[in-house]
Amino acid sequence: MQPNTPPAATVLAEKPPKNEFSFTLLSTQGHARAGQFATPHGTIPTPAFMPVGTQSAVKTLTWGQVADTGASMVLSNAYHLFLSPGPERIKQFGGLHKWMNWNGPILTDSGGFQVFSLAHLRKITPKGVHFRNPVNGDKHFIGPAESMAMQAAFGADVIMAFDECPPYPADEKQVADSLTLTSRWLEQCWDIHSQNKFPHGNEQALFPIVQGGTYEHLRDKAIENVAQYPSHGVAIGGVSVGEDRNEINRIVAHTAPQLPADKPRYLMGVGTPEDLLMGVKRGVDLFDCVMPTRIARHATFFSWEGRKNIKNQQFADDINPLDDACDCWTCEHHHRAYIRHLCRLNEPAGAALMSIHNIRFLVKLMEDIRKAILENRFDDFYEDSLTRLGVTLR
Amino acid sequence: MQPNTPPAATVLAEKPPKNEFSFTLLSTQGHARAGQFATPHGTIPTPAFMPVGTQSAVKTLTWGQVADTGASMVLSNAYHLFLSPGPERIKQFGGLHKWMNWNGPILTDSGGFQVFSLAHLRKITPKGVHFRNPVNGDKHFIGPAESMAMQAAFGADVIMAFDECPPYPADEKQVADSLTLTSRWLEQCWDIHSQNKFPHGNEQALFPIVQGGTYEHLRDKAIENVAQYPSHGVAIGGVSVGEDRNEINRIVAHTAPQLPADKPRYLMGVGTPEDLLMGVKRGVDLFDCVMPTRIARHATFFSWEGRKNIKNQQFADDINPLDDACDCWTCEHHHRAYIRHLCRLNEPAGAALMSIHNIRFLVKLMEDIRKAILENRFDDFYEDSLTRLGVTLR
Repeated sequence: MQPNTPPAATVLAEKPPKNEFSFTLLSTQGHARAGQFATPHGTIPTPAFMPVGTQSAVKTLTWGQVADTGASMVLSNAYHLFLSPGPERIKQFGGLHKWMNWNGPILTDSGGFQVFSLAHLRKITPKGVHFRNPVNGDKHFIGPAESMAMQAAFGADVIMAFDECPPYPADEKQVADSLTLTSRWLEQCWDIHSQNKFPHGNEQALFPIVQGGTYEHLRDKAIENVAQYPSHGVAIGGVSVGEDRNEINRIVAHTAPQLPADKPRYLMGVGTPEDLLMGVKRGVDLFDCVMPTRIARHATFFSWEGRKNIKNQQFADDINPLDDACDCWTCEHHHRAYIRHLCRLNEPAGAALMSIHNIRFLVKLMEDIRKAILENRFDDFYEDSLTRLGVTLR
Repeated sequence: MQPNTPPAATVLAEKPPKNEFSFTLLSTQGHARAGQFATPHGTIPTPAFMPVGTQSAVKTLTWGQVADTGASMVLSNAYHLFLSPGPERIKQFGGLHKWMNWNGPILTDSGGFQVFSLAHLRKITPKGVHFRNPVNGDKHFIGPAESMAMQAAFGADVIMAFDECPPYPADEKQVADSLTLTSRWLEQCWDIHSQNKFPHGNEQALFPIVQGGTYEHLRDKAIENVAQYPSHGVAIGGVSVGEDRNEINRIVAHTAPQLPADKPRYLMGVGTPEDLLMGVKRGVDLFDCVMPTRIARHATFFSWEGRKNIKNQQFADDINPLDDACDCWTCEHHHRAYIRHLCRLNEPAGAALMSIHNIRFLVKLMEDIRKAILENRFDDFYEDSLTRLGVTLR
């Protein structure tokens, strides 16, 4: 037996953190930043991409395989964990780290985004959201208090404020009203979080979320509002919910540089290679997205020649790895022809091999970006990378 | 990156093989045998259980995960490989070892069993079987010559004679006629195999298969027939095709001890813990079965308290591993409550964790059996094990 071991956490020798949470900027180039974000479960070299373990597992992979991708921090979804196995069971098992046996840093979202997008028969009130369990029809309610309570029970290192993410497109009035609600909920979340007794022993950092849709003056208002809170980090929400790439770029470019320079900036739910490059260029430090695993299950893989479907006939006799520059387990062991064969036949191992590759592709992109920033050559890396990917950003 | 590496092959220091294929008996107790079977891709400590990679992948697992179970030899199915990716493609990629990047010993079956049980619109003639591809309706034919040709193209270390496996129950005349056909096909297979030029450089061993259903005198006739061939091993087929446990036990007990003592004996398609114990007691050296991975995908796991379904409510808060005595990756990292949660939600990682456990359970059982034989305490181990499993054999 030579088991993979989930990482005890990535600890950088450079600057050991003095507090449970700290963010250290090591180098900047324009808005792009290389740093390290220390949490109770280890230090994350930033910028970083977080794979998503929606239901406390990254789809198709063991945590040993996730650790092997080099990911240092992962995300799990409060809404899904709330429905199963429930906050009480996770609390009883000593929190999410012990429940799923991932000893590195974890972030949970608030449940807000999913309850709005996935729950059945939902009804939004100023106090929160009434909804029904889509599986068994049970009635539930989540508001700021419920979200804070369950996220305390989960015990993730970073937890998120309960917010409303307006749809896209939405008119200005709708987004402004939504922002007022999000601001009120943030105040309530912060008050409750201030009383958080950290049931699993580790301190938890609550990140506020900047909403405001595609309206720059509403983003400005949100930035001003979250700046009041002495948080350990700030998130940008409501991005990549339907806008095109240039619209995403415009909003991130407007928002990220205005956020406090001494805190990590987390762009929620964003995860194509080009979006990560763009986000870092605008000053973002943390990203998450289900995309690498979701597209893997649909036979699509990232490569430096763009996104491709492995089932394509052109790969039938292809002895090359998924991507020549990739060092993931899949690319080190298998060629495209074999992976195509598995994916065509819906062999479950095919989706696992593709997921390993897609996650590692983004994690390695972040490692390469970080190195470029530290070596003061990020602008060239950025231009070269977009050219290689065949992407143009306005 | 700390990739799992498929094993270069398990090589025992004890007695290095002089030929490409050799079988060495190290110890016997009654009919039970501990030995080592040397092949061009490594030496298998026997008795051994071979996991099945039907379509050149063990379902839900990477080959790294299979290697981590301690399995030294694996099986793949000629019928499935024939349909996809096809013998030509595998040959072009340098054979099955290179195609799927498993560098340990491999066995392929002949395609016979699956073409009879799975193919559509099949028609059996004295020359072989006409059938249609169940996916696209293409017409195909496999007989002894076709089976030998494709198995040479695959290049597995051990290849099987093309045979007919009669159904169960079947009357004596039906089984006798079938045996006549199988004997004729064996002769043809052996003639063709004698001309095998080993396209991938490694010698291949053709195993004849003893059929004869549940009729002892027909088994005797088959044993006499296969004894004519100077093969490197002999298989017992047509067992566990519907008979109850005592019937299986009776036929194996009658057949196995009569096979040549100086060759490995392979009992095809048998794979419960109790069947492995029973088989070894009767003198069997090699086993294969899809059961560990198939039941894993249906949420069932092996344990020393018998087979259990992880979705059962009794495991909802169970902090224990799947089996206390197991040292698999799953048991070393996760408790039953977490695995139950994943399996209930059909999270793909659940089936992978269960598959790792079930394969390791059988591989470790074989390791423990082998140790018991080498230490001359197999009879006690056998009785104790059946008692722990709650199984009675007549």
